[in-house]
Amino acid sequence: MRFKFFALFFLTTTFTFQSFSQGEEEAFFIRSVYDHALTESQCYDWLTHLSTNIGARLSGSDNYNRAATYTRSVLQNMEVDTLFTQASEVDYWIRGTKTEVMVILPNGRKWPLNCIALGKSIGNGLNSIMGEIIEVHSLDEVEKLGREKIQGKIVFYNRPMDPKQVRTFNAYGGAVDQRVFGASKASEYGAVGALVRSMTTRKDDVPHTGTMTYAEGVSPIPGIAISTNDADQLSEMLTEQSLSASIVSDSKDGGKKNADNVVAEIRGSEFPDEIILVGGHLDSWDVGGGAHDDGSGCVHAMQVIHTLKALNYQPKRTIRCVLFANEENGLAGALEYARISNEKGEFHLAAIESDAGGFSPRGFSVDGHPEILQNYAKKISDWVSTYLGPYGLMMSTGGSGADINPLKSQQGILIGLRPDSQRYFDFHHTANDRIQAVNQRELQLGAAAMTSLVYLIDQNGLK
Amino acid sequence: MRFKFFALFFLTTTFTFQSFSQGEEEAFFIRSVYDHALTESQCYDWLTHLSTNIGARLSGSDNYNRAATYTRSVLQNMEVDTLFTQASEVDYWIRGTKTEVMVILPNGRKWPLNCIALGKSIGNGLNSIMGEIIEVHSLDEVEKLGREKIQGKIVFYNRPMDPKQVRTFNAYGGAVDQRVFGASKASEYGAVGALVRSMTTRKDDVPHTGTMTYAEGVSPIPGIAISTNDADQLSEMLTEQSLSASIVSDSKDGGKKNADNVVAEIRGSEFPDEIILVGGHLDSWDVGGGAHDDGSGCVHAMQVIHTLKALNYQPKRTIRCVLFANEENGLAGALEYARISNEKGEFHLAAIESDAGGFSPRGFSVDGHPEILQNYAKKISDWVSTYLGPYGLMMSTGGSGADINPLKSQQGILIGLRPDSQRYFDFHHTANDRIQAVNQRELQLGAAAMTSLVYLIDQNGLK
Repeated sequence: MRFKFFALFFLTTTFTFQSFSQGEEEAFFIRSVYDHALTESQCYDWLTHLSTNIGARLSGSDNYNRAATYTRSVLQNMEVDTLFTQASEVDYWIRGTKTEVMVILPNGRKWPLNCIALGKSIGNGLNSIMGEIIEVHSLDEVEKLGREKIQGKIVFYNRPMDPKQVRTFNAYGGAVDQRVFGASKASEYGAVGALVRSMTTRKDDVPHTGTMTYAEGVSPIPGIAISTNDADQLSEMLTEQSLSASIVSDSKDGGKKNADNVVAEIRGSEFPDEIILVGGHLDSWDVGGGAHDDGSGCVHAMQVIHTLKALNYQPKRTIRCVLFANEENGLAGALEYARISNEKGEFHLAAIESDAGGFSPRGFSVDGHPEILQNYAKKISDWVSTYLGPYGLMMSTGGSGADINPLKSQQGILIGLRPDSQRYFDFHHTANDRIQAVNQRELQLGAAAMTSLVYLIDQNGLK
Repeated sequence: MRFKFFALFFLTTTFTFQSFSQGEEEAFFIRSVYDHALTESQCYDWLTHLSTNIGARLSGSDNYNRAATYTRSVLQNMEVDTLFTQASEVDYWIRGTKTEVMVILPNGRKWPLNCIALGKSIGNGLNSIMGEIIEVHSLDEVEKLGREKIQGKIVFYNRPMDPKQVRTFNAYGGAVDQRVFGASKASEYGAVGALVRSMTTRKDDVPHTGTMTYAEGVSPIPGIAISTNDADQLSEMLTEQSLSASIVSDSKDGGKKNADNVVAEIRGSEFPDEIILVGGHLDSWDVGGGAHDDGSGCVHAMQVIHTLKALNYQPKRTIRCVLFANEENGLAGALEYARISNEKGEFHLAAIESDAGGFSPRGFSVDGHPEILQNYAKKISDWVSTYLGPYGLMMSTGGSGADINPLKSQQGILIGLRPDSQRYFDFHHTANDRIQAVNQRELQLGAAAMTSLVYLIDQNGLK
């Protein structure tokens, strides 16, 4: 039944195109993209497998390799023109067997916080670290307090993500320096450990991991995220008395490992040297299932290829799907991809990344060199409002995606899919980032949005 | 701390307004509305109480009365100028103690379907009804099959909501005639019962209730929704053999009862006779917690008043919050409200209803008489794109809300809040429509959107 319906559909399509003006043809094709995404797409099934059957997939882990093998096989079944993997060397990290933060209460009892070691944090084996807790709200505050106040202490970074930011990514951007640099800064002033309020506007008991780093020459001390509920309660208790805590964390460096980018492409018929990249990152943190971050982005990119193939679309330009390794803790996959691409003298006319979750798409943001933005952004914005406005999408300028950013020097345009951001940080980097948190239609609509934009760029170019 | 911050905030506001141009003043006030909604609003707490502590609240039930008492007391605490309830007579309905559909399998075993009686369905006490199942896809098909094929059968309506519709409400509108009129139409041709595929695009085991009606003179037969998974499986089995089922349902008419609208207003200082209504419906179906449908709409409307009061805003026009009774099964509250309003010669300059869930707001749709739309819609659309575009909101024409629709004759403008619709029918009219399905920030943003639009209409009027 399904096959018959599609055969009929294509007859109609072919026939009707002949009498269409260009604008009508584009609107019609985009409608067929949405129809396919909402009825015949497989992105939700792929994501279920990736996030549930495979699960969390830190770069360098066996699970990462399983994810690369799986997605490669799915792309192979689409009969793409080119399919390969690209090795990159990543800094592996081992969470270890135990992360524990116990606050010593005035009555001598111990209060275990809901906590999780931050990525790349280095612990002290299974040896306990003790210290008085000192609450701060910024890296600057640590500097101002100085060694006298910080030495021997456990620094507790508790500046919340600003709930007044309508776009939660802006709130994240305004708070995440505590997570990334907090432990290192505290160590510079003699602290023995760092606790960081989880990066979410939600008040709950779920701690959020995420990357951190030590500045060169700084002695590594453990960096540990605690849940927002615990952060609030701890802060309240600290207004009344001083408190100490013990930390145990045996997280450690895991040496160098390999992790592959997965690359598949359909070669362009007219301008094969103009590459339109769609991508996401295949690695995730080592907890949860990496469903929104960034399994969704990967299956979005794969669905672009699947839908174009299913609609028998022959692109003028080369459409390349790239699943990057190691976005979460090093960006090695993206840097290696850009290095090889530059070495080959490739030109990415456009690169579109989905790395903001599988939520209902609200539009795209574009980035690029000023002259590129000036030349191209208006054109893309016009297409989006004409053809994609009816699907609820808008265009804005802003960042694109961490994995495609290294391609900026090729003087193409960089684009980020922008889904609704309200729920993203409910799940980001937690045990709850699982398929159950993804709505099938919202995911499908993201894929349709990306496919439609790829089609418009492919049809019209950007000059 | 919080109080001090606000005191300072208002000093700044008052001072700064004086040097603002009008557009800047409006942008500034709207920013303060969003700040309040995202940090100080209480809508999520109210909704938690309404949907969890009180719970499902069918018009005429004790729970409905509790909900009216509760929301009235919350509004009273806001020190509104006027607060009253408005009685309306509703047709009460009793689900009864049992709804069961057993398909008799070829091997003689019975397969119990995931089912729920439709609202207003009349059963046959605890007596079993037996019949062969006949699958149809429309009311028309029943007419075409005629009495010969329908007599004595159980008609199974199985036309899915169209997944290709990007706005799920359009898909709902295209399928819901089966639920509303299916049992009645089947009875006209001699059927003994009607099963209806649940109104959702999701494939799961959760049946969805909702209103139905019997045409005058038609013998009532039970109308029962079954889950989409069961509908798909039943349909597949029916391609291979004929199947019978037994239905037990003791749902019945519950006679007349009273249910109150709750009305609160802040009187306008310059044009008190121009009413700007914000509202939702306080009743829900008798399963789940009525969190999205339409607890969200009620707390949105209440939050408008709360935020305007908290910001010390004195409206020029009368702002009225109305929580309507009986939207789900009769609209008695809305009709009574409009009747009294017309009797008093009132004029609703604008009425804004939130009855599409507490999801991330995407914009508004406007409705009204053609000449009204022509005069006002452009103006509202300009405001929305100028002041609310930065918050991701768009304007469209279309329906507004069932409860405010009776006010159309007053020649004002009718507006519906339009949240993202993808997840609405995952929960609609089910046991899962609970606070856990509502994201706090998404709910708050809906309230901010409504408050901002009320402010713009109040400041500028519509002439």
